[in-house]
Amino acid sequence: MSSTESQEVLDAALTLIHSRQHISPKRLGDPGPNSEQAGKILTAASAAPDHGQLTPWRLVIIPPERRHLLAEAFAEALVERDREATAGQRQEAREKAYRGPFLVMIIARLDPALGPTHPQERLISAGCAVQNMLLTAHAMGFGAGLSSGRALYSQRMRELFGLAAHEQPLCFITVGTVLRGKAAAARPAIADYTSTL
Amino acid sequence: MSSTESQEVLDAALTLIHSRQHISPKRLGDPGPNSEQAGKILTAASAAPDHGQLTPWRLVIIPPERRHLLAEAFAEALVERDREATAGQRQEAREKAYRGPFLVMIIARLDPALGPTHPQERLISAGCAVQNMLLTAHAMGFGAGLSSGRALYSQRMRELFGLAAHEQPLCFITVGTVLRGKAAAARPAIADYTSTL
Repeated sequence: MSSTESQEVLDAALTLIHSRQHISPKRLGDPGPNSEQAGKILTAASAAPDHGQLTPWRLVIIPPERRHLLAEAFAEALVERDREATAGQRQEAREKAYRGPFLVMIIARLDPALGPTHPQERLISAGCAVQNMLLTAHAMGFGAGLSSGRALYSQRMRELFGLAAHEQPLCFITVGTVLRGKAAAARPAIADYTSTL
Repeated sequence: MSSTESQEVLDAALTLIHSRQHISPKRLGDPGPNSEQAGKILTAASAAPDHGQLTPWRLVIIPPERRHLLAEAFAEALVERDREATAGQRQEAREKAYRGPFLVMIIARLDPALGPTHPQERLISAGCAVQNMLLTAHAMGFGAGLSSGRALYSQRMRELFGLAAHEQPLCFITVGTVLRGKAAAARPAIADYTSTL
């Protein structure tokens, strides 16, 4: 590579990384990724660091025709933690399941039988996989956002996604077209998070 | 953006993501990133998703003139878990501290007082920050690798890095020039880690 080409590669990487921002699922609409694009987003996860090659996480796609199952799980998880939730609150919980055209859950596989890799390292691998997917969606011109919330960790959600004993739900990733922009979030400065030994 | 430009942005992102691979610190040498390059690598971390804007992780640079402290910590951590470690084994543990020209530890900040964001989400943010740094180093033409090991989780290491009660060491990130290449690691296929609800 010439030094001009090297500079272009670096500039492209830094622009990609720094221009990406969290877009709330509420602000993501159609069109979402087509199946070829979805394939590229999912494949980007495979390039995450993976100590011991365990693939210590997995993805579950929630397609449009199955969103009603997630909606019921959100409503039931709400009732599980608040028996007095109103019909309006339950409806609000259900509506979250329909946000954004492409929705995936990422699940950590923390079973010690998989290999000796420490649970924290497995979560770092999962985070790297998530960032690869977010960057790929962003490079396609889509918006994307992570979401979680107490329902994610509920027994109801574990049942719906068929989680094994050592599996942990990490977050949802929603990808779609940005319907409404938002001011860019402030980023911390290096000095806010870096010190020298 | 024209559709040609869009295609170029996506191609550049996919090439960056898929051509990156783990390079063991043993295979990383001088030159490492200069201070401007190091600044760009560290700044890439700031663009990680960060629910609630907690900056739930921090970085500690271990400069060359302080590597001897890390070397002693590696040797002492070995003795902490194996009182019968030989002089040769202790020396081998020490040598790990000198590998690679640029070395950073990433530490998770899991203090509940920081905010309500779940510990797992904080680790996902840390993973995203790690991936941004690895991709930036790769875009500069450097090799980079994550490393951990039992010494990382030792009391001796906690003391050296001044970890607070709710802080957890996650991994070391080493960046440098690739001295010896290696065959690319196999990646899992989408079907190995993806299902549909």
